[in-house]
Amino acid sequence: MARFTIYRGFLSMRRHSGSVAILVIACLAVVSEAQTRREIRFPDLPGQRTLKCDFHTHTAFSDGDVWPHVRINEAWREGLDVIAITDHIEYRPHKNDINADHNRPYEIAAARAKELNILVIKGTEITRDTPPGHFNALFLEDINPLDTKDFYEVFNRATAQKAFITWNHPSWLGVERGKWGEAQTRLFEAKQLHAVEICNGDEYYPDGHQSAIERGLPVLGCSDVHRPLSDRPATATEHRTMTLVFAKERSLPAVREALFAGRTVAWYKNQLIGPENLLAPMLAACVEIRPPHHQNKDSAWVEIRNLCELDLTLELGPAGSITRANIPAGATNVVRLSVKALSADGSIACKASNFITAPNTVLQTRLMIATPKPAPTTSPAGI
Amino acid sequence: MARFTIYRGFLSMRRHSGSVAILVIACLAVVSEAQTRREIRFPDLPGQRTLKCDFHTHTAFSDGDVWPHVRINEAWREGLDVIAITDHIEYRPHKNDINADHNRPYEIAAARAKELNILVIKGTEITRDTPPGHFNALFLEDINPLDTKDFYEVFNRATAQKAFITWNHPSWLGVERGKWGEAQTRLFEAKQLHAVEICNGDEYYPDGHQSAIERGLPVLGCSDVHRPLSDRPATATEHRTMTLVFAKERSLPAVREALFAGRTVAWYKNQLIGPENLLAPMLAACVEIRPPHHQNKDSAWVEIRNLCELDLTLELGPAGSITRANIPAGATNVVRLSVKALSADGSIACKASNFITAPNTVLQTRLMIATPKPAPTTSPAGI
Amino acid sequence: MARFTIYRGFLSMRRHSGSVAILVIACLAVVSEAQTRREIRFPDLPGQRTLKCDFHTHTAFSDGDVWPHVRINEAWREGLDVIAITDHIEYRPHKNDINADHNRPYEIAAARAKELNILVIKGTEITRDTPPGHFNALFLEDINPLDTKDFYEVFNRATAQKAFITWNHPSWLGVERGKWGEAQTRLFEAKQLHAVEICNGDEYYPDGHQSAIERGLPVLGCSDVHRPLSDRPATATEHRTMTLVFAKERSLPAVREALFAGRTVAWYKNQLIGPENLLAPMLAACVEIRPPHHQNKDSAWVEIRNLCELDLTLELGPAGSITRANIPAGATNVVRLSVKALSADGSIACKASNFITAPNTVLQTRLMIATPKPAPTTSPAGI
Amino acid sequence: MARFTIYRGFLSMRRHSGSVAILVIACLAVVSEAQTRREIRFPDLPGQRTLKCDFHTHTAFSDGDVWPHVRINEAWREGLDVIAITDHIEYRPHKNDINADHNRPYEIAAARAKELNILVIKGTEITRDTPPGHFNALFLEDINPLDTKDFYEVFNRATAQKAFITWNHPSWLGVERGKWGEAQTRLFEAKQLHAVEICNGDEYYPDGHQSAIERGLPVLGCSDVHRPLSDRPATATEHRTMTLVFAKERSLPAVREALFAGRTVAWYKNQLIGPENLLAPMLAACVEIRPPHHQNKDSAWVEIRNLCELDLTLELGPAGSITRANIPAGATNVVRLSVKALSADGSIACKASNFITAPNTVLQTRLMIATPKPAPTTSPAGI
Repeated sequence: MARFTIYRGFLSMRRHSGSVAILVIACLAVVSEAQTRREIRFPDLPGQRTLKCDFHTHTAFSDGDVWPHVRINEAWREGLDVIAITDHIEYRPHKNDINADHNRPYEIAAARAKELNILVIKGTEITRDTPPGHFNALFLEDINPLDTKDFYEVFNRATAQKAFITWNHPSWLGVERGKWGEAQTRLFEAKQLHAVEICNGDEYYPDGHQSAIERGLPVLGCSDVHRPLSDRPATATEHRTMTLVFAKERSLPAVREALFAGRTVAWYKNQLIGPENLLAPMLAACVEIRPPHHQNKDSAWVEIRNLCELDLTLELGPAGSITRANIPAGATNVVRLSVKALSADGSIACKASNFITAPNTVLQTRLMIATPKPAPTTSPAGI
Repeated sequence: MARFTIYRGFLSMRRHSGSVAILVIACLAVVSEAQTRREIRFPDLPGQRTLKCDFHTHTAFSDGDVWPHVRINEAWREGLDVIAITDHIEYRPHKNDINADHNRPYEIAAARAKELNILVIKGTEITRDTPPGHFNALFLEDINPLDTKDFYEVFNRATAQKAFITWNHPSWLGVERGKWGEAQTRLFEAKQLHAVEICNGDEYYPDGHQSAIERGLPVLGCSDVHRPLSDRPATATEHRTMTLVFAKERSLPAVREALFAGRTVAWYKNQLIGPENLLAPMLAACVEIRPPHHQNKDSAWVEIRNLCELDLTLELGPAGSITRANIPAGATNVVRLSVKALSADGSIACKASNFITAPNTVLQTRLMIATPKPAPTTSPAGI
Repeated sequence: MARFTIYRGFLSMRRHSGSVAILVIACLAVVSEAQTRREIRFPDLPGQRTLKCDFHTHTAFSDGDVWPHVRINEAWREGLDVIAITDHIEYRPHKNDINADHNRPYEIAAARAKELNILVIKGTEITRDTPPGHFNALFLEDINPLDTKDFYEVFNRATAQKAFITWNHPSWLGVERGKWGEAQTRLFEAKQLHAVEICNGDEYYPDGHQSAIERGLPVLGCSDVHRPLSDRPATATEHRTMTLVFAKERSLPAVREALFAGRTVAWYKNQLIGPENLLAPMLAACVEIRPPHHQNKDSAWVEIRNLCELDLTLELGPAGSITRANIPAGATNVVRLSVKALSADGSIACKASNFITAPNTVLQTRLMIATPKPAPTTSPAGI
Repeated sequence: MARFTIYRGFLSMRRHSGSVAILVIACLAVVSEAQTRREIRFPDLPGQRTLKCDFHTHTAFSDGDVWPHVRINEAWREGLDVIAITDHIEYRPHKNDINADHNRPYEIAAARAKELNILVIKGTEITRDTPPGHFNALFLEDINPLDTKDFYEVFNRATAQKAFITWNHPSWLGVERGKWGEAQTRLFEAKQLHAVEICNGDEYYPDGHQSAIERGLPVLGCSDVHRPLSDRPATATEHRTMTLVFAKERSLPAVREALFAGRTVAWYKNQLIGPENLLAPMLAACVEIRPPHHQNKDSAWVEIRNLCELDLTLELGPAGSITRANIPAGATNVVRLSVKALSADGSIACKASNFITAPNTVLQTRLMIATPKPAPTTSPAGI
């Protein structure tokens, strides 16, 4: 695929022309060729869809670099299901050039989202000094009423619209200024603070993570993107920071329900960060250990397949007989295990360095050896 | 993963050392880290496994560049299931340095194959002037008896071992010298010629393809590799030329059964080449067309997912209302179809430029719009 | 380098904060880390700098997708020296949201250009039905006076400002509508048409090229970019379409002088397109043929180094003894030449498929074998 | 360029054929197309060539995986000037299959080296328990006399041939077993130990480095490659570990002279490791700092170009006013310096994290701002 089809892209449509017929033809060709999506490989959990979500993005309507529909094009290309447009209310450096109310960037994005089947959330960033810091209000009906100077009144008005409210990048200006403070406590007690953005772009905030754990708040990873996003293929370590939401279906109401129910995990660099009750089934869904195909009295050779986007680092087996396996995203390794690692019930002790349940704490669990499945009896295509 | 772990790789094991304990530890680490496999994404067909096979490779024992176990490492890394070692009987430029009978390269390869779960076939290349050309005998018990000057006697001895015999790279020295000739006819009539290698490395032989079609012989694609193989990630256009075999299970007897039954397709550059009765279900398994997510009176926007390794080029819809979709391997496009493309029975007319049923002939078929499936009720891992 | 430093990028600066001190520190770090440039390797010609220029770009102020400073960031990253901002006067789909006069996108871009040492030209695109089509006016003082409906008056006003005027993408709506017409003749005769954009994005217009040759007009290649540009490393075949300008120094007056003097070549896909008197010395500067390092009575082995961004395809030697060499950008090949290719004067006949002097015409010339140079006596760093 | 031209590669030549004419033609095409080299960008120093050398490689004749000419193909492809073939004398796991004396792998390699202009050294690895460990003897006339059990006698015989002798991978079996011991002392005092391989594949040995510094021995980086080498493009962090030798010319005698004179630096991952008197001029040659192109009262914006293969990490300026610059290999950054960094003499304080003069010690030096050079008056091609 051409790197510079972007020139062709929607170019023709945008050049002024008297010929509507030509525009329609060009458009047909364009949609088919230019909009290629790479799915993000994190498996669904039993009974739930794993939706890939970014709840924090900016456009030229505040201090971002792009027109709002670009955020939809990027989301599609990168395999996301959901994004929120969250331009600042208070910080709009282009306001002398751009004339629009606070809902306008959402409107532009939503028109494009319909074509590309992206779910888009109307949101905004409430932007104050740190502390208390920045907050996102998501699922708003109308952003304009939030443009007021009274800090707590903003949250009352957001709550009146049943917004989901997040505390953004707690320690972005240092740990001292990023502590859970009086404002956070007051909002939390008023049920006006619903999640903590523990990963923002290429930063992770252990203190914010600890605060979330202590209060039972869901954790989010977000891009907070301002510039045009890279179109290089994402890798396990270089990808958009985002949130996996385990939703009952692919719809905005289901995303909202899952957020309020706390079914979220942050995907940050080469890690999934979240509660053990979500990470343990996710690890089980990501790793397929096949029965040994070769064995001697000491060792068993097994194929282990990594079904997700992390470059997995696993320690397999009981203390004293551990084999370390580094399995790149989507790859399969042959791993030589000690026969002591194979227990009678078909399970193997596993420590997964990429699965983070709390600051400095990795998931320890047991994985089952897979039962072989027969070849499918019907074609595998299907949604 | 480090590009140069190959230095570490099996290095430690190969340095001379008095310490067996150290060797064992090193070995454990090595197998886990160095042997990463990328699965080749061609879906199984109903009731059959799609095995990825290369029936033509060389080692230093004839005119190749590598020790035989390297061919197994490469096969594992590249996602193959089956390879044949087919060193020349008659052409062995290293024979002053290497002292061994004709079975030796297979033996070395087979020892490694056990660890990496690769199925390896004992074979050889019968190497004569062109015409009559070169032939592979596969599934031999003992290659040594085939080392005789009488051309037809070689085939008798191969057949006595129930070999599967292929005619290799028909036109590699030009179309004139590569014609189906008297030798081919005599062997075919004696049931001593079972397939035609229509693709060899980066060459495709339309005449050989036509010869195979006319006589109902299965077609093969093979690498005929002599040099060490590239370890760059394969792409739709740059990959090992190989054969997809549709076998009842992943075993050598099943491969043999499928070969004699003619269930093969060549994967050559960005094409699958084979008979329509195999290519049509393969296309159906590779393409997932989702129900429209957006529609107006003229157009319907649908997501189409490409589940295979080809960069697909599809023409969708009836004459006069065709949309062309270029969907890279493993990617999803939004395609804007004419509403006229959507028929009442949920099928769409499709011309697939990458699926070649005969020289200059591409597959035309109908594809069904997929029925949405619910989220899985159990973990997706499994073989 | 991190793919997603873009999140960090200028992010911190753009978040609202009360702390000026922190902003300054963040800014220092950001400029150092985020703005990496890949130089474009086309050698200078004797006495002249080879400047890499894009004379046709759009921003959100007309129908582009990005804020104007993004075009400067992209130009720096991609190794350009010069860009023109050329938003449409007549076609501004965001005009209900953006309130600004026609000079505003240039002003925003110019502020950023100072920091990144990019030369930026104030320009505009005159956008009419085709025919007569679209034209760029470059090096304007004030764009606003050109916002008038009288077609020829626009050119008078541009000429009054000493603009350099180009005819854009002649056949973008088909060969018939893209012919050199009455308007072109009238402008040309009035000395109000100075160049033809023969390459635009991924299109090349042979008819436009022929028109330029016949009238002695310089040729341009431009991106006409609307979307955010890819940040993937450019390759010989996938790069921004641009113009090489051979200027006496790296300054806007020197660019202007070179344009009016016709010292331009278009770099389009894997080709340089321009007049022979420029292409011949450019080829000589791009190819270094070393003296044979090994020879027998028939053949000579020589190293040939490709010093430019094209994947070169050369045919070397006299008729009947030609060796074809495919030398990737920046690489060196060992080429085995016939001894007949080595003439007494140290020159070798060469046909260069990538150097296009006219539609369907490639450069044929002679290249000299290089004289070895001693190791440098001083450090090679220097501008 | 096709990834799988390797199939074509020398394939045709190796298939048995009666037609010599065809072989010659195939061969001509092959040499031209298949053998592409990427030069390694480390600049020459004043009066010296920077030769890229690997003094430690294996082939199938000991415990390597490839036929010896493959090491030459790899060296050419990767941009090396010099390699040594150093198969083990004592450890030859393929000896039941391969029948040859110890000089044979060199002979095979040397025939290929002539065509590809690679300098190849006849060497061997003396392979004993650790301690005393492994040693390479380089520049031998005849390896066979070294095949004797008496440890010290081997070195006498190597010295009789004027060999250059290296102590290999000191701590490869742990720091304890890798200490400088009695054997090293005895050899060193007898002038039979001339260098220490402080980097081997992906290992670095600080203790060995310290031993070399204390005794004034030159340091080497080597691959010790056994497997086929990757053909992926090398990066700053993933490349063949090698030695830069600063030689008076590109010849084996000059390499030998430079080795005995100690003019070597190891290139290991993203670092150059060696003595300060070599690293300081190398850094000066690698970094081009241009005069500020933009300035205000606090800051100066300068372009800094990285002319080498390291991703440089520089700290520029005096204490309290340091700017950190991460400049990828071959790239240019705009760096915003404090005006305090600009001293009257045009030099800037610089700490270069990639230049290692001793374990845990990085180079600190001053770099000069470059003086602009005029455009060249002659074509830049030349050796």
